[in-house]
Amino acid sequence: MKRQKITVVGSGNVGATVAHLTVLKNLGDVVLYDIVEGSPQGKSLDLQEAAPIEGFDCFVIGTNQPKDTADSDIIVITAGMARKPGMSRDDLLDTNVSIMRQVVRQITPHSPNAILIIVTNPSDVMAQVALQESGFAPEKVLGLGGVLDSTRFRSFIALELGVSFEAVTALVLGGHGDSMVPLVRYSYAGGIPIDKLLDEETLHLIVERTRKGGSEIVDLLKTGSAYYAPGSAVVSMMEAILKDKKSIMPVSAYVSGEYGLSNVYLGVPVILGSHGVEKIIELDLLPSEHADLLKSADGVKRILTRT
Amino acid sequence: MKRQKITVVGSGNVGATVAHLTVLKNLGDVVLYDIVEGSPQGKSLDLQEAAPIEGFDCFVIGTNQPKDTADSDIIVITAGMARKPGMSRDDLLDTNVSIMRQVVRQITPHSPNAILIIVTNPSDVMAQVALQESGFAPEKVLGLGGVLDSTRFRSFIALELGVSFEAVTALVLGGHGDSMVPLVRYSYAGGIPIDKLLDEETLHLIVERTRKGGSEIVDLLKTGSAYYAPGSAVVSMMEAILKDKKSIMPVSAYVSGEYGLSNVYLGVPVILGSHGVEKIIELDLLPSEHADLLKSADGVKRILTRT
Amino acid sequence: MKRQKITVVGSGNVGATVAHLTVLKNLGDVVLYDIVEGSPQGKSLDLQEAAPIEGFDCFVIGTNQPKDTADSDIIVITAGMARKPGMSRDDLLDTNVSIMRQVVRQITPHSPNAILIIVTNPSDVMAQVALQESGFAPEKVLGLGGVLDSTRFRSFIALELGVSFEAVTALVLGGHGDSMVPLVRYSYAGGIPIDKLLDEETLHLIVERTRKGGSEIVDLLKTGSAYYAPGSAVVSMMEAILKDKKSIMPVSAYVSGEYGLSNVYLGVPVILGSHGVEKIIELDLLPSEHADLLKSADGVKRILTRT
Amino acid sequence: MKRQKITVVGSGNVGATVAHLTVLKNLGDVVLYDIVEGSPQGKSLDLQEAAPIEGFDCFVIGTNQPKDTADSDIIVITAGMARKPGMSRDDLLDTNVSIMRQVVRQITPHSPNAILIIVTNPSDVMAQVALQESGFAPEKVLGLGGVLDSTRFRSFIALELGVSFEAVTALVLGGHGDSMVPLVRYSYAGGIPIDKLLDEETLHLIVERTRKGGSEIVDLLKTGSAYYAPGSAVVSMMEAILKDKKSIMPVSAYVSGEYGLSNVYLGVPVILGSHGVEKIIELDLLPSEHADLLKSADGVKRILTRT
Repeated sequence: MKRQKITVVGSGNVGATVAHLTVLKNLGDVVLYDIVEGSPQGKSLDLQEAAPIEGFDCFVIGTNQPKDTADSDIIVITAGMARKPGMSRDDLLDTNVSIMRQVVRQITPHSPNAILIIVTNPSDVMAQVALQESGFAPEKVLGLGGVLDSTRFRSFIALELGVSFEAVTALVLGGHGDSMVPLVRYSYAGGIPIDKLLDEETLHLIVERTRKGGSEIVDLLKTGSAYYAPGSAVVSMMEAILKDKKSIMPVSAYVSGEYGLSNVYLGVPVILGSHGVEKIIELDLLPSEHADLLKSADGVKRILTRT
Repeated sequence: MKRQKITVVGSGNVGATVAHLTVLKNLGDVVLYDIVEGSPQGKSLDLQEAAPIEGFDCFVIGTNQPKDTADSDIIVITAGMARKPGMSRDDLLDTNVSIMRQVVRQITPHSPNAILIIVTNPSDVMAQVALQESGFAPEKVLGLGGVLDSTRFRSFIALELGVSFEAVTALVLGGHGDSMVPLVRYSYAGGIPIDKLLDEETLHLIVERTRKGGSEIVDLLKTGSAYYAPGSAVVSMMEAILKDKKSIMPVSAYVSGEYGLSNVYLGVPVILGSHGVEKIIELDLLPSEHADLLKSADGVKRILTRT
Repeated sequence: MKRQKITVVGSGNVGATVAHLTVLKNLGDVVLYDIVEGSPQGKSLDLQEAAPIEGFDCFVIGTNQPKDTADSDIIVITAGMARKPGMSRDDLLDTNVSIMRQVVRQITPHSPNAILIIVTNPSDVMAQVALQESGFAPEKVLGLGGVLDSTRFRSFIALELGVSFEAVTALVLGGHGDSMVPLVRYSYAGGIPIDKLLDEETLHLIVERTRKGGSEIVDLLKTGSAYYAPGSAVVSMMEAILKDKKSIMPVSAYVSGEYGLSNVYLGVPVILGSHGVEKIIELDLLPSEHADLLKSADGVKRILTRT
Repeated sequence: MKRQKITVVGSGNVGATVAHLTVLKNLGDVVLYDIVEGSPQGKSLDLQEAAPIEGFDCFVIGTNQPKDTADSDIIVITAGMARKPGMSRDDLLDTNVSIMRQVVRQITPHSPNAILIIVTNPSDVMAQVALQESGFAPEKVLGLGGVLDSTRFRSFIALELGVSFEAVTALVLGGHGDSMVPLVRYSYAGGIPIDKLLDEETLHLIVERTRKGGSEIVDLLKTGSAYYAPGSAVVSMMEAILKDKKSIMPVSAYVSGEYGLSNVYLGVPVILGSHGVEKIIELDLLPSEHADLLKSADGVKRILTRT
């Protein structure tokens, strides 16, 4: 009955929202780490002060010291520059790769048994960088991807149909970028295939909106990017791991032969439990769907060669 | 079984956090209103997209149109300039009073049966401005105050004692500013008076830290003020009202003779239910405590005369 | 912001479990009604005494007076004799029909705007009896059925696959009895059709176990029947209504032409919201599935003619 | 990130309710053990089948084999004969002591690191029997007591005052029987001492009702005793331990000098965390309160000598 410990690297909006949801759900103690002074300490204190009202008994600590993260069960890395309006997810690459390398080098040695969840974009690429730099087993390094893209896809479907958000399930595979592959054939409302419920044109619009889901928020906010749905996506992954739920979720995982692909991180459905990615599930794909997935993987690989 | 509707005015960090907690707790549909374009729409969409993961079936809409707030059950007003480092809560007065008047004039006529929760600082003064401007009954206009100050007080006590945050209860009365009145005599850990558990010096330090709780966060964050604990405080007030809990909480309420004070908003313990402030509770105070409360009320009145 | 009121008729295990889950989820005040004296009062008091620990602010009252149920938003009827080992669901018919008529006649006139959820078995038949006796609109009278059968089906699939229970969705249509129609084609784990994950023989065994899910518990308990999963099933229907979730669930609803059937209650997927059954969803069925559904409907009709 | 495991001994109403609340709160896997065949298996299966609806990913297993309980983190013992109307808590002694000895001998060797929570009445005496028989450290063996008595006391106060159940805190010390010691002086509503809110006669009636809280339910139910509030009380103790909350609660703990008492289990306020009873808190008591506590301890000791 050891207390669980979660380190969140990066005290920006995404990191702080992950910390917030973690304590609201009573998942464990949180260390909010940043190189910036004041921000992790201030946000942590503010989060901690909500404890008596929200009834959680987790400690929240902000720090600039890597050693304070020692013995974490999960490390979520959100560090990196935020995407600005007009920027693609890929533009930020160089800066963020070097931030990622540095963070992983400083933080992971203190928590050799942790599972890493990489949020910094492009998350598929960054997960691979984190894998290399940490030397962790591939099943213990995963990237945010399909869970976020899927919750957007599901939201748009639910809003269109006028049904409960919970009633809709959906799968989005591939890279967590413009080349993502929303799978209409694997999406349902109350168990009913959505192509029985929505016409082709509507579905096309929803798929396109999903692909550009991140940009839509960036364009509205003007000075930042999404953090509420990303935070929920990350914490649902974390919860699956900490509670050993054996959840089935699309995450960015390291494929080794599955879908005819190898040595690359890509959004695929996995079973997520206390060991991390416990299994990659191979779906039957149509040739066109498989082609889209390969194209998406190519995009990730192309960026990788530039890092 | 009408759906409940909550309007949050101001899409800054406090407003958005109130909206976030409202939907996480499934309390009702949220309209996030702001005069700024893009921000309420972007944050609302981001919040809405978390629905499939978090399992709430609330709609979240961002708008710049007052009419979209029509028929709200609760209106939370957070609009106003944020406090900057070095600023006192009172410095922002003039600008924020005129923002408050305008917001109340534009929003409240669309929801004549709503209950108003005023968050903009100085909240005691702003609540009185909102009372005048709305023409609402006093029990339906209340200000954030003691709940936030108390959760800070409780946190510091729990951290000092090394006990559960839930185990500590505490009362902070008076104006929600530097003159607040933390009542050590009405504060307990597991039902045990804290002055039996902590020595006088420690208690003095905790009381002082509580009084300056808002500034402590501002000084750390440098570019903003607290929003997580304030958001939780507001939503706990909202929940007491929407669920008719008859909670006992210190809020900024309009006193009419209680504690020898009249015609002023001040932090006092109240019973909070579906009618708003259903009762103001009069505590037995020591002469010194009562003197502090009068001084705090004087501070609020002094500011009021300047508005 | 009127308090919500739920009447539960019958203070046996199912009724008391419905009351328990209702207050744990803070859905509203509960009136536990029974003709037996002492039992509803004792269980209500016991439930009420859990409030300070569980943090709900719902009143729980036990009564033998129909008038105490006045102005309920939802009435759940569980009254009836329990099934004994060896008994089929249909054996209890005559007694329970006359209990149902009497309960509906005594209780519903006090709550003309309530929605009725019928749990007493055979629930499809009993729902029709309640419809006739109450004079309520068909969309406001529904029976427990598919939600319970589906949660069993989902459990067996999840256990077989070793995945999260939440990851599995499934549909069971038809009468809530041995003729129920588990639809393998509309059942998924993480969005993947289960016939891609489980072989035919395993699926066959799971389908058969689902059909006999109620009897399996009766045979183990020897002196009673299931109440935990049934209680959760009822409360999920109640929550969809009280929170206007527009959930998609299989419930026993009054079909009027859908699936080529009329004037009979039968398990079908519906959209459930504040108006009750807001829509019956017609699935594409294979001829064999449709034949099973007709056969199941025939069974319900045959019993009805005997009432 | 080992899964947590909770064994519940005794599949009667209290045991099954403890199992139910444990999985609803997602606290860990549950083994429901009983010597009776069928009952633990049937109730477990019923509980398990609620998982897809309630969203928990805990396994629930019913068994008659002590070895299935191996490596539990917590063992709750509810085994024993139920109290019948007219019986005092002490009447059942002899039978239940020998059941307790046998259960502890069979179950605890499989889980040498578990914490034991004893529910069987008289729980103070049974806790001591379990301590002797298990050879566990005293801080790892505790009995249900004050948490249950206090939640009843709190309920009666809240109902009398018409305030939120959560707003009331209260302490009940001493033996969990007719000699219990409700401490009016340590009981509050919203932090206000209840003797400022209720007159002496009303308080006296509430104290008496609290003392006889168990019998009141037995008299109403006629064929059983309370299980909902007891279940919530046990699970709140369990949660404090599993989440290392450092909660302050009155439980039956082994005193070694505190309150001038030694070598006896008695209801006292403790800090409850992952190590079990981490500290016994000594309250300042009035001479009359202390006398009541000594008398209550004498009662426990007198029974002990008869075992």
